[in-house]
Amino acid sequence: TVITQKGEYLIGTGKKDFDIREIGHMEGISDIHIVSDDYKLVSKKWKVKPTIIDLGDGVVIEEGGFQIMAGPCSIESEDQIRKVIGHLKENGISIMRGGVYKPRSSPYSFRGLGIEGLQLWYQLAKEAGIKIITEVMQVSQIAEMYPYTDIYQVGARNTQNFNLLDELGKVDKPVMIKRGISGTIDELLSSAEYVFSGGNERLLLCERGIRTYESATRNTMDLNAIAVLKEKTHLPVISDPSHGIGIRDFVEPIALASIMAGADGVIFETHEKPEEAYSDGQQTLNFEESTKMINRMRKTFELRESF
Amino acid sequence: TVITQKGEYLIGTGKKDFDIREIGHMEGISDIHIVSDDYKLVSKKWKVKPTIIDLGDGVVIEEGGFQIMAGPCSIESEDQIRKVIGHLKENGISIMRGGVYKPRSSPYSFRGLGIEGLQLWYQLAKEAGIKIITEVMQVSQIAEMYPYTDIYQVGARNTQNFNLLDELGKVDKPVMIKRGISGTIDELLSSAEYVFSGGNERLLLCERGIRTYESATRNTMDLNAIAVLKEKTHLPVISDPSHGIGIRDFVEPIALASIMAGADGVIFETHEKPEEAYSDGQQTLNFEESTKMINRMRKTFELRESF
Amino acid sequence: TVITQKGEYLIGTGKKDFDIREIGHMEGISDIHIVSDDYKLVSKKWKVKPTIIDLGDGVVIEEGGFQIMAGPCSIESEDQIRKVIGHLKENGISIMRGGVYKPRSSPYSFRGLGIEGLQLWYQLAKEAGIKIITEVMQVSQIAEMYPYTDIYQVGARNTQNFNLLDELGKVDKPVMIKRGISGTIDELLSSAEYVFSGGNERLLLCERGIRTYESATRNTMDLNAIAVLKEKTHLPVISDPSHGIGIRDFVEPIALASIMAGADGVIFETHEKPEEAYSDGQQTLNFEESTKMINRMRKTFELRESF
Amino acid sequence: TVITQKGEYLIGTGKKDFDIREIGHMEGISDIHIVSDDYKLVSKKWKVKPTIIDLGDGVVIEEGGFQIMAGPCSIESEDQIRKVIGHLKENGISIMRGGVYKPRSSPYSFRGLGIEGLQLWYQLAKEAGIKIITEVMQVSQIAEMYPYTDIYQVGARNTQNFNLLDELGKVDKPVMIKRGISGTIDELLSSAEYVFSGGNERLLLCERGIRTYESATRNTMDLNAIAVLKEKTHLPVISDPSHGIGIRDFVEPIALASIMAGADGVIFETHEKPEEAYSDGQQTLNFEESTKMINRMRKTFELRESF
Repeated sequence: TVITQKGEYLIGTGKKDFDIREIGHMEGISDIHIVSDDYKLVSKKWKVKPTIIDLGDGVVIEEGGFQIMAGPCSIESEDQIRKVIGHLKENGISIMRGGVYKPRSSPYSFRGLGIEGLQLWYQLAKEAGIKIITEVMQVSQIAEMYPYTDIYQVGARNTQNFNLLDELGKVDKPVMIKRGISGTIDELLSSAEYVFSGGNERLLLCERGIRTYESATRNTMDLNAIAVLKEKTHLPVISDPSHGIGIRDFVEPIALASIMAGADGVIFETHEKPEEAYSDGQQTLNFEESTKMINRMRKTFELRESF
Repeated sequence: TVITQKGEYLIGTGKKDFDIREIGHMEGISDIHIVSDDYKLVSKKWKVKPTIIDLGDGVVIEEGGFQIMAGPCSIESEDQIRKVIGHLKENGISIMRGGVYKPRSSPYSFRGLGIEGLQLWYQLAKEAGIKIITEVMQVSQIAEMYPYTDIYQVGARNTQNFNLLDELGKVDKPVMIKRGISGTIDELLSSAEYVFSGGNERLLLCERGIRTYESATRNTMDLNAIAVLKEKTHLPVISDPSHGIGIRDFVEPIALASIMAGADGVIFETHEKPEEAYSDGQQTLNFEESTKMINRMRKTFELRESF
Repeated sequence: TVITQKGEYLIGTGKKDFDIREIGHMEGISDIHIVSDDYKLVSKKWKVKPTIIDLGDGVVIEEGGFQIMAGPCSIESEDQIRKVIGHLKENGISIMRGGVYKPRSSPYSFRGLGIEGLQLWYQLAKEAGIKIITEVMQVSQIAEMYPYTDIYQVGARNTQNFNLLDELGKVDKPVMIKRGISGTIDELLSSAEYVFSGGNERLLLCERGIRTYESATRNTMDLNAIAVLKEKTHLPVISDPSHGIGIRDFVEPIALASIMAGADGVIFETHEKPEEAYSDGQQTLNFEESTKMINRMRKTFELRESF
Repeated sequence: TVITQKGEYLIGTGKKDFDIREIGHMEGISDIHIVSDDYKLVSKKWKVKPTIIDLGDGVVIEEGGFQIMAGPCSIESEDQIRKVIGHLKENGISIMRGGVYKPRSSPYSFRGLGIEGLQLWYQLAKEAGIKIITEVMQVSQIAEMYPYTDIYQVGARNTQNFNLLDELGKVDKPVMIKRGISGTIDELLSSAEYVFSGGNERLLLCERGIRTYESATRNTMDLNAIAVLKEKTHLPVISDPSHGIGIRDFVEPIALASIMAGADGVIFETHEKPEEAYSDGQQTLNFEESTKMINRMRKTFELRESF
């Protein structure tokens, strides 16, 4: 039995065929569905209505809608935060991204400002009416970060960190799960199933490019996955073109393309001076590029809506 | 020295540094460029003006423009051809795709109607004012097909069939080269360089999905490649969403996405009754779906143009 | 400064060129090396002598030697443990593998017996003079498992779980890190660098197959990686043919091949009745197959040694 | 009906179930098999006896045996040929590899000496009692090369050049088909089926590494494929470690590993002075390295035979 913050679900799994009438007349059962996929609760097969994630203050992410999240790769300083917030306010963006715990391949790289950085950032964002999304890397950070975050992000290296997913299932704040660096679509949905079956229904999925043999781009953005996910799940699907292609000049076309592929939102990296950013500068837009892209994304979404 | 149907080029390659002033003052030299990539003539580094391919009768494919090519996977019968032509005329499409030589993994699969099918098809298309594009699989077919085709297509399995590319360099009809099943962007450009350096400048490139570990879709459409190719080459880049995702329901979102990524055209599969098609039925649109998608593609291109 | 259980290292990183004579004459400096790779301490560039990991009681894993580790995918019951131990003793194997915490794609799959299973297993193994290796999935398990394990294993999904790696750097028991499902060789070495720079030099690396487009086998065993790792690092490299190919009949040829490629050890799955195993039965050898393979592996290692 | 140089086969394909008794009593039918794979004639399901390819003069390649083929990437000059032949004779090698038609990504690279080079080489090899294997790139070369070759090689870029395969089915000389750069095991077998069903049963398959995301090596040698092919087909399977890893120092361990994985032969690149070779020097062994590896390969095969 799964009890989430929104309802109660009884999941039955097994290899035997099953007569659903046997439990259908039992008291308290309102509906029964057979879902043949490995994932059950995140499937569109039983829940046709789109998932709506309400962050409060009128900020909503929903399957079928469109939200933009933007900000630097790493949170660096008060000055940097203030400048990004100013840029977001000017463009009517309500959700800021940024990292304070940075997963880095090498132990000698910059690993982020940590909890102090998060506290400062959250404070400034709250004053400005901006929600924040930031990566959580391990179980012990969940409680620590709780007062200072609006959406927990699970990074591509942690998509199958099942203990982390289990624990995020117990939290009453939304979670965005990025697809693994070489994760399949089904693995992403199964990872979401961990959190959902743990009790937390407020989930977002994020396509951020996969690893292939092509080395001209940092990753290979898989827009097929966005189209497929839109059919398989009732959860909102977010596109991350910054990591998906990894080269500044091409972030915009991939962002616009992902909207046409069906994305319910776009998350991207912006910084006042990308060339001075602590990390990911090569794929980060400056504010001018960011503003131009935001306007074009909105027009593209409008067109998609008109279809 | 490369002499094409449009001009003369002198290509110098080598590992030594080179003082371009040495040849700059020689008679007959109008311009000199240094191109550090493996491919030279297809690079945007020397040719900033987009390539325009004029098929006659007002049908033009050009870098920066937008053309649609549609038709069945395989040419099957006169009746089938007439119905597709009717559908194209209704929707204002001027280029029909179709295969008469089919590369098939198994020797026991349907391999196409061959030259008789092509002759019939070309005749019917010409009467209707429709241009045709069809796959050439080997050198001996080039001359055979010459009177009956408007654009030669080089399939994904032949992207590095260098003898075929060499011979196509000697022909005065346009050639569309599909990216290899696991071809890199640079390999595609080098294959185009074969044809161009052979003398034929009228070239199109086509992204049709690459092979990855993801098995939920037939291929992984690489829209990053379209964005990157648009910067690297002056040749038009065409998107093939039918093969790129391989599942009927998702062809439209990927087609629209590829326009936003920068495609100069879309080629897709349509058939009166996809479920009865000899091949690729699972990714082929019926006429109703096709009409809807054509309209949406045009609106998407209009929006892109407005940016 | 890195202080491990074996020595003290001063690591300097940066982009500037550097005159090593400046620090060479300082007191307490015994040796200086320049390592241009992202990983430093695990590189063979400074440490030519092979790493030797002494597990006590004469059980040693060393670069250039050969050790076998065998056992079931999951620890299931006392009876199962006793039977495997009996099989290992008969074949002179000193290290038993087995999982009590199982990372599973779906939350509804069997997740292992947990700490009680580990306690029982360790007790039985100790009585028999057998060392054990088992997977640790999260930071909180490190201390919990400490009294009951001889080698911590980091699974393919946790190769870039950097917090876990950081914490394992503080432990005085050996750690075997598996290559990520799509991890590069350099990423594996950088993950090892996390543990080493955290203070724990007793490290093993494990090739267990990577994810490719080929679906005839579970993974694609990358024996190239074993050959390359042997040149890049002084750490022992272990081969896992069970996961590497994932099909029982082919485990032996891949095990023997990996010895010829240079592996310092092989870890594989065996069970009295593979068809009844809780997990991974399709790639698990029965005891008869296991015995045959153990003998052949030893002869293959002897041959390699004679070269 | 397929009539090969060795026998007659009636292949029936289709989706309907079929009662084999209906044709079993017909005259002239000696045996009936049901093969559910896409490939039929190359399957081990009907032919249990290994295929033996007799090149004459006592040179035999057979499934279950072991043959070595060695030589330079490109044939360069009479002097080079003589030196390699001398090296092969000293080591008791009867088959020499070399390219006179070179598939090159760039049209500006060295493309081989062509038919004159082949004639010279064949003459010298014949005098020395050495058989030769060389790549055929297009249909028109088949007849041209016929008098001067012992084994036709189909390169990785032509594995799915179906016209070439069709024509090679009509020739009475052996053909070795290399796996495609990203070809699946099943595709390789289906390509062999083209040649076999065209009438030529004398076929070899060759694993030469596949394209993956790993960039530390030129390709990823897939030894799993060798183990799997040995079960699926009665055709001999050859390993090409030179292309499989692409780095000189690692050719030997991969060669030895591939023998343990089940290879019926090894083909590798050797040259008197690899650093001066026209192509592939970085993966070519000098004669000293070659001699050492040949001896070790033979000992490794002996050990495998003893199992």
